[in-house]
Amino acid sequence: MKAVVLLSGGLDSTTICSLAAAEGREIYALTLAYHQRHEREIEFAKQTAKAFGAKEHIVFPVALDLFGGSTLTDLSRPVSRDVPLSEIGQAIPDSYVPARNTVFLSLALACAETRGAQEIWLGVNSVDYSGYPDCRPEFLDAFEHLAHLATKAGVEKTASFRIRAPLLHLTKGEIIRLGMKHGVDYSKTLTCYTPDEQGRACGHCESCLLRLDGFRQAGLTDPAAYV
Amino acid sequence: MKAVVLLSGGLDSTTICSLAAAEGREIYALTLAYHQRHEREIEFAKQTAKAFGAKEHIVFPVALDLFGGSTLTDLSRPVSRDVPLSEIGQAIPDSYVPARNTVFLSLALACAETRGAQEIWLGVNSVDYSGYPDCRPEFLDAFEHLAHLATKAGVEKTASFRIRAPLLHLTKGEIIRLGMKHGVDYSKTLTCYTPDEQGRACGHCESCLLRLDGFRQAGLTDPAAYV
Repeated sequence: MKAVVLLSGGLDSTTICSLAAAEGREIYALTLAYHQRHEREIEFAKQTAKAFGAKEHIVFPVALDLFGGSTLTDLSRPVSRDVPLSEIGQAIPDSYVPARNTVFLSLALACAETRGAQEIWLGVNSVDYSGYPDCRPEFLDAFEHLAHLATKAGVEKTASFRIRAPLLHLTKGEIIRLGMKHGVDYSKTLTCYTPDEQGRACGHCESCLLRLDGFRQAGLTDPAAYV
Repeated sequence: MKAVVLLSGGLDSTTICSLAAAEGREIYALTLAYHQRHEREIEFAKQTAKAFGAKEHIVFPVALDLFGGSTLTDLSRPVSRDVPLSEIGQAIPDSYVPARNTVFLSLALACAETRGAQEIWLGVNSVDYSGYPDCRPEFLDAFEHLAHLATKAGVEKTASFRIRAPLLHLTKGEIIRLGMKHGVDYSKTLTCYTPDEQGRACGHCESCLLRLDGFRQAGLTDPAAYV
């Protein structure tokens, strides 16, 4: 079965890609270049797509910085640092990119329909959806409903698009253990929002803090390079 | 009230822009450059945004030709010509661009959230939705539902995104009469899928045929240039 995999090059989406491969999917990897400040992650996405034998890898430009509204696309806004773990996810973080996952899933849907894929895989999980509105289960359900109404394949019932989010109820630690089991090399993933010029992670942004905590939970050492 | 207006430069979206202006909206016009073969329409969109006093006009590139699957974005596929009017809308036409309106509305939602707009206007109508899945009322309802779940503004209830499609139940003739009443200059719109190098319409593609029939219904002569 064909599947579009939304692959950013980060920890979660790389794990997703390994799971899709393990389930024998023919993988159409889709990476969105949205002028994110950490666009270096795209290089890792390319390596991952290749490592897991993707049939096709499309790097699709969508300049969300034209709209702004997030610390990830607006370089004039500082990224939060050293937020206590207990506070992460209590409110929608300033790294929220307006309507990002709606845009990403829409493009994945366009890709899926043209490739004859029946599934769209994405790496959202419970850590995300505590903070980001467009990572919650009810959002994913609503998108799946929309996908059937939105497409030729949906109307003609030649395809039934399923949104696959197998990390949804897992912690970061569980995700990492799962990925290790399926051959993910986490040194080839970038999680950090503010890597330095060599691509080394900062260790202080919310994304780094959650990742490092995940490796602690899993009883492992993060193989990624840190400043 | 602020409104994002999806403005292609065609007949319907130009009419929509005139209606939003007549209702006193602060207009944020959004034009998607999706490598459509008739991208000359974008020049008309710019003129329309200016004519109706848009506060901002964003031309946003989204290269849907990377996915293909439509005669509008795949130049190797011929556009249908001289289809009998009675047959148009009986099936999904080959000009259908996979998931196009889902992608467009997603980007409009991102734009709306960053601009603090509460409405998204688009020019879909009954002529369209007889043929295109993503022009039907149930699709628009599903997207409005999704918009509330997808966004910070929706979750925090600081905005309630409304999809405004006031042409939904109108014929082309009615749309043209309405636009004339609100100051639309239809010589400054491009409907044709295959205009020539001077921007003159072909008069034979499905889009031209519906437009010409609309002017006939309205008892008017189309001021646009034809080959």
